Amino acid sequence: MLDLRSDTVTKPSDAMREAMASAPVGDDVLDGDPTLAALQSRVADLLGVEAALWTPTGCMANAIALMYHLERGDRFLAPAGAHVLEAELGTSAWLAGGLPTPLPVRPEPADVLRSAGGASPYFGLRSRLLCLENTHNAGGGAVTPVGEHTALVEAARSAGLRVHLDGARVWHAAVALDVPVASLVAGVDTVSVCLSKGLGAPMGSVVAGSAEFVSAAWRLRKMLGGGIRQGGVVGAAGLVALEQIADLAADHEHATLLADGLREQGWPVSTPDTNIVLVTTDAPGPVVGKLADVGVAAVPFGPGVRFVTHRDVSRADVETVLERVAGLPVP
Amino acid sequence: MLDLRSDTVTKPSDAMREAMASAPVGDDVLDGDPTLAALQSRVADLLGVEAALWTPTGCMANAIALMYHLERGDRFLAPAGAHVLEAELGTSAWLAGGLPTPLPVRPEPADVLRSAGGASPYFGLRSRLLCLENTHNAGGGAVTPVGEHTALVEAARSAGLRVHLDGARVWHAAVALDVPVASLVAGVDTVSVCLSKGLGAPMGSVVAGSAEFVSAAWRLRKMLGGGIRQGGVVGAAGLVALEQIADLAADHEHATLLADGLREQGWPVSTPDTNIVLVTTDAPGPVVGKLADVGVAAVPFGPGVRFVTHRDVSRADVETVLERVAGLPVP
Amino acid sequence: MLDLRSDTVTKPSDAMREAMASAPVGDDVLDGDPTLAALQSRVADLLGVEAALWTPTGCMANAIALMYHLERGDRFLAPAGAHVLEAELGTSAWLAGGLPTPLPVRPEPADVLRSAGGASPYFGLRSRLLCLENTHNAGGGAVTPVGEHTALVEAARSAGLRVHLDGARVWHAAVALDVPVASLVAGVDTVSVCLSKGLGAPMGSVVAGSAEFVSAAWRLRKMLGGGIRQGGVVGAAGLVALEQIADLAADHEHATLLADGLREQGWPVSTPDTNIVLVTTDAPGPVVGKLADVGVAAVPFGPGVRFVTHRDVSRADVETVLERVAGLPVP
Amino acid sequence: MLDLRSDTVTKPSDAMREAMASAPVGDDVLDGDPTLAALQSRVADLLGVEAALWTPTGCMANAIALMYHLERGDRFLAPAGAHVLEAELGTSAWLAGGLPTPLPVRPEPADVLRSAGGASPYFGLRSRLLCLENTHNAGGGAVTPVGEHTALVEAARSAGLRVHLDGARVWHAAVALDVPVASLVAGVDTVSVCLSKGLGAPMGSVVAGSAEFVSAAWRLRKMLGGGIRQGGVVGAAGLVALEQIADLAADHEHATLLADGLREQGWPVSTPDTNIVLVTTDAPGPVVGKLADVGVAAVPFGPGVRFVTHRDVSRADVETVLERVAGLPVP
Repeated sequence: MLDLRSDTVTKPSDAMREAMASAPVGDDVLDGDPTLAALQSRVADLLGVEAALWTPTGCMANAIALMYHLERGDRFLAPAGAHVLEAELGTSAWLAGGLPTPLPVRPEPADVLRSAGGASPYFGLRSRLLCLENTHNAGGGAVTPVGEHTALVEAARSAGLRVHLDGARVWHAAVALDVPVASLVAGVDTVSVCLSKGLGAPMGSVVAGSAEFVSAAWRLRKMLGGGIRQGGVVGAAGLVALEQIADLAADHEHATLLADGLREQGWPVSTPDTNIVLVTTDAPGPVVGKLADVGVAAVPFGPGVRFVTHRDVSRADVETVLERVAGLPVP
Repeated sequence: MLDLRSDTVTKPSDAMREAMASAPVGDDVLDGDPTLAALQSRVADLLGVEAALWTPTGCMANAIALMYHLERGDRFLAPAGAHVLEAELGTSAWLAGGLPTPLPVRPEPADVLRSAGGASPYFGLRSRLLCLENTHNAGGGAVTPVGEHTALVEAARSAGLRVHLDGARVWHAAVALDVPVASLVAGVDTVSVCLSKGLGAPMGSVVAGSAEFVSAAWRLRKMLGGGIRQGGVVGAAGLVALEQIADLAADHEHATLLADGLREQGWPVSTPDTNIVLVTTDAPGPVVGKLADVGVAAVPFGPGVRFVTHRDVSRADVETVLERVAGLPVP
Repeated sequence: MLDLRSDTVTKPSDAMREAMASAPVGDDVLDGDPTLAALQSRVADLLGVEAALWTPTGCMANAIALMYHLERGDRFLAPAGAHVLEAELGTSAWLAGGLPTPLPVRPEPADVLRSAGGASPYFGLRSRLLCLENTHNAGGGAVTPVGEHTALVEAARSAGLRVHLDGARVWHAAVALDVPVASLVAGVDTVSVCLSKGLGAPMGSVVAGSAEFVSAAWRLRKMLGGGIRQGGVVGAAGLVALEQIADLAADHEHATLLADGLREQGWPVSTPDTNIVLVTTDAPGPVVGKLADVGVAAVPFGPGVRFVTHRDVSRADVETVLERVAGLPVP
Repeated sequence: MLDLRSDTVTKPSDAMREAMASAPVGDDVLDGDPTLAALQSRVADLLGVEAALWTPTGCMANAIALMYHLERGDRFLAPAGAHVLEAELGTSAWLAGGLPTPLPVRPEPADVLRSAGGASPYFGLRSRLLCLENTHNAGGGAVTPVGEHTALVEAARSAGLRVHLDGARVWHAAVALDVPVASLVAGVDTVSVCLSKGLGAPMGSVVAGSAEFVSAAWRLRKMLGGGIRQGGVVGAAGLVALEQIADLAADHEHATLLADGLREQGWPVSTPDTNIVLVTTDAPGPVVGKLADVGVAAVPFGPGVRFVTHRDVSRADVETVLERVAGLPVP
C-alpha cells in the first residue's frame, strides 16, 4: 500500500532516531530541557519572532493561541474549512470561548473588513481575531503569497483584530514561494508550526510569538496537559526536522507529477501549489475504496478525494501510483 | 417618536398591571409559585408538550435548551442569522459547547441532511442538534409553514439530530397561518417562546418540552441565575399576554400597510409574512438617522433597515409613519 | 403553617404591588428602564459605590462578579459554607473558572494571608479574590463588624487580592450594628445585595462596584440571560424594599425572642446576631418533621435546623411558634 | 548538585534510548501506533482493567478522567493536597466542571459517606466522584493498603459515587506492600499511572478503565491536544519503564536511609512509606536555600521541605547528602 492519505504518516528518519537517542535532556517543567530550549530558540529565529514553545500537537498549539486571544463572546474569523474549526473538535468555541465567522476559502481583505464589522459594547459578538492558515489544507494546500498575507494582516489591524497564523504547513508555502518563512509570519501576533507533518518528526508542534505570549502559553500548556518532562528526546527529532525544510521541494514536484498524470488519465484534479492534490467527485467513498483495491491509500475530503505527497513517497512511488490508477474508472 | 425598532419595546397594558398587582404568589425556588405554575401549565397545553418552565429572558430559555442538548465537540445546525448565534453572545459555543454550522436563512431538508453528515466517532464534530427559528427574524419575520416545519424535523430525525425551536415569535407564525401553535411545535424536543415581544409582557419567556427536560431545565435555570422567588408577579403578566395572541393579526396588517406604503413611495421593501418589514440599503446608518429626524425609530439590520409593528403601534401610527417618511429621499 | 424556613418566602406588600402597577418602564436592553435606573442609582448611593446593576437573582449577581474577577486557574478564598460555593451549584468553578480555598466560617486576616500564599507564575493556582459574606448565613446570620471587615479587606489588599462581598443580607448587618451600610462595603471591589430576602421584594438583586465593572457586568448579565426588558415593574418593588430596611430591626428582635424562648425550653440554640436562629442537632430531618407536625416550618441546615424571621412573621407569630414547640421533645 | 526535588527529574536510561531508537511506529491518530498499542495493552493487563490510553502527561490523564466523570454542578471528593486539586491548575473545576470537597489527607470510609451526603435533585452540588491518590504525595508518599483501598471504594459505591484513582505512584505502593498493582486498582472506574516519575521514562502517563471509557478518552485526548502521531518513540520508553517497577524498592530503601540519617542529626522528619521524605519546618524557603548551598536540591512543600529518592540517586548519593547536611543547622 502506498500511503498518500496525509503527510502525518511520515516516519522518523534514522537521523532523527539517532538524535533522539543521544539528546541532552532535563526536566522541562522544572528547569527547562536543553534540547527543547534549542529547538524553541531555533524556531523563533526562523519565524522572526521573540519566543517559541514546543507542544505535543498542533491542536494544542492552536488551542493555546486561541485561549490566549479570545474571551467568551468574542468572534474570530477563519477561512472556510480551517483546521481550527471542525478538525479541532470545536475547542475554539468551548475551550477558548469564541464563535467563528467563516470567510471564503481564500479570503480577501474586504472579507475581513466586512466580517469584522463592529458591535456595540453590549450587543453581539466582539470581533477579536483573524485566524489564517498557510498553506490552507481545505484549499488543497493553497499558498498565500507574501503580498496577500500582508494585505490580510493589515486589514485585520485596521479592523482592530489580532492575527493568529496556523502555519502547520507554512514551511511548504515558504519553499513553494522561495521566500524566508519569516516573511509569511510577518505581522501576526501568534503562529503555530508543525514538526510532524511534512518535516517528518514523530510528534510535536511549536507555538510562537512575543515573549509575553510564550510566558502565558507556558501556563496554558500545563493546564491542557502538555507540560512534559525530558522532552528533549522528541525535541531532538524536531531539530532534525528543521534541517529538512528544503526537502519539501521534492514533495511539491511529486504532487505536480501526480496531478499531471491523473489529469492525463482524465481525472478532474486540482493544480497543486504544494503537496496536496484534490480530486473532485461527489462519491469520494467509492473512489477511495477503488484506490485501496489497487494499493493506493487516499482519503475522502469534503466533496472529493485528497492525496498528499511526503518524505516517505518517492518519485518512483508516484509513478507506481499512476500505473495502478490507470486501470480505474475515471471519477 | 414612533418606535418601530422592535416589538420588545411594548409596555405592559393596564390589564397586565392589574394582574400583576393581584397575583397569588409563592416561593418558586422552594414550593413553586402558583401563578407561574398556572402559566407554565397553560403554555405547555398551548404548545402541546408535557411541561414548561418560565425564564427571565429568551436568551436564558435558549441557553438552557442548548446546554441540555449539546456536549463539547458537538455541531448544531441553525439558519444564518439565527438568534442563538450572534445575538446571544455565543453562549451556544462557550456555555453549551457546540459549534454552529450555518444553514441558509430558509433551510430545506436537503441542507439539513448534507450538513449533518457523519463524523467518525473520533474525528471532527458530532452533529447533534438542529435549531429552527419560526418566525425567522433575520428572514424578515418569515413564517415556516407546517409542511416545511414537519419536513425539516423529519430530516433532522433521519440524520439522528434532536430539534430545538426558537419560537420567540412562533405566535406570529400561528396567527399568520391560522393554525394552532402546537402544529408548528410538533416533533421538536424543546421549544422556547417569548411573552415579552409581540405579546407585550414586561419580561419573561418559557422553555418547554418533555417532563424530563423541564426537570433538567429547572436545575440549569438555577445555575444561570434564573431561579426567582415570587415570580407570580411577572407570571401574571404572562398569563394576560397569552390572551392577546389573536391581537397579533393587527400587527401583521399594520406591517403590510407599512410595506405597501413604503413601496408606493419607491422604497425597496420586503413583503412581510408577519410583523417585520425590511428595507434593503447598503447605508442603513444614514437611513435610520433620517428616519429619526422625522420622528420614526427603526434599526439597522444587517445590510438594511428593520421596522417592527407591535401592540403599541396603531394603524393611525403607521399612517403617520408613512406621512413622515414621504419627505425623505428613497434609500 | 408558620413559615420560618427562609426570608425568601416573604411576599410583596400592598405598597410594592401598587408601585409595580404604576411604575414607569422602558426597554432596559435598548434605552434603559427609568425605574430600574432609579433603583440602581439609589443602591449605588446607599452602598457608596459608583454604579449598580439589577439582576433577577443573587445567584446571577454573584456569578457576574466572579466571572469578572476570575480567570481559569485562579484561586478564590471564601468562608466555609459561603453561598458562592455549593448553593450556587459550583458556578464559581465551571462558569467563572476559579477553585475555592475555604477559610474558617469566621475568617481572620491571618487566614487570608496564609491561604493567599503565592504561586510561581507557572505552577499552581493564582490567588485572585477574597469573597466575604455579611451577614454569613452558614454562621447563623453572623455579623462582621466594621473593624473586622476593614481588617479582612486590608489583608486581602496586602496579599494582592481583590474583594467581593456577598451582601445578600448586608442590610441586616448594618441594622444590627446601627451603621451605614456603606461602612460595611468600604474597600471592596464588588458587592451584591438582595432585595428579595428580608426586604421583601418578589425578586431581584443588585450587583455594584465601579462604573467600569458595571459596564462589564451589563454584558455578562446579557450572556447569562438576565437582560430583561420592562424591568421597572419589578424594580419598583425594589425601590419600596429599600424603604423597608429599618424594619429589619423587628426581625432581629423576633429572632432573639425565638432563641430565648427555645433556650428556656432546653433547646441547644444559637444566640442570633440578626434574623437567623440555629438549633444544634445531629438529626435535623426528624426535628424538622416534628416541627411541621405542629405547624412550624423550618429547614435542615448542615448539622442542625434553621429558623429565619422575616417581615411576614410577627411577634405574635413567634409566640405561637414557642407555644407549638413547647410540646415537642428537646432535640 | 544532588537532585532530590522530585522523581520527575529522572533521565531516560540507555535501554530506553535504544528502545526509542528502534521502536516500530505508526500514525496513532489514523491507524494506531504498534508500540503505543503494546504499551497500552501491557498497562491494562498490569492494572487488571479492560483498556488503557497513553497520554503525554499525568495532568492530561487525570483531566480526561475528570471530564469523563463530572458534569457542571457536580461535587467530587479528594484528599487534601491531592494532585488533581491545585497542582493541575484547577482543571477539575473549569474544565471538568466539578467543585471539590476536600477530605482528610488520609480519608476513612466515614469521611466519604459524610461528604457525599445527598442533595435534592435541584439544590446544591451533586456528589459524583471520589478521587483517590495512592501513594499520596501530600501525605509524604503514604501508601493506602489494599484493605483501606477496598473499604474506601465500597464506601464510594454505597454513596453512589464513581471512583478515579490518581495512581501516578501506585507502582511504589504495590512495591512497598509487595502486592500486585491490580489489587490497588480493584473496583475503581478509572485510573491514571505515570511512566515518567519513578519509572524513569522521559514523558508519558496512561489512563485506563473500561473499553467504553477508553473510547471516550480517545476523543477527549484529541480535544485537549494529546493525539500524537508516531508516539511509539516515547511509548518504547514506557515499555522499558514497566520493566523497572521492581527497582523502586531501592528508592524506598534510600528514602528510609535518608530519613533515618536526618533524624539522627536531629531533623524533624517523616517515616517514609515509599520514596518521599518530608521535613517539618515553618521556614521551608531558608532550609531549601541552605541545602542548595551544600549541593543538595530539595523543594518547599506546604509547611515543610520534601526530598524524593529516585533511579538517578544511588545509595552513595544519599550518604553524600547526609554528609553535606551534617554541617547545617537543624530546622
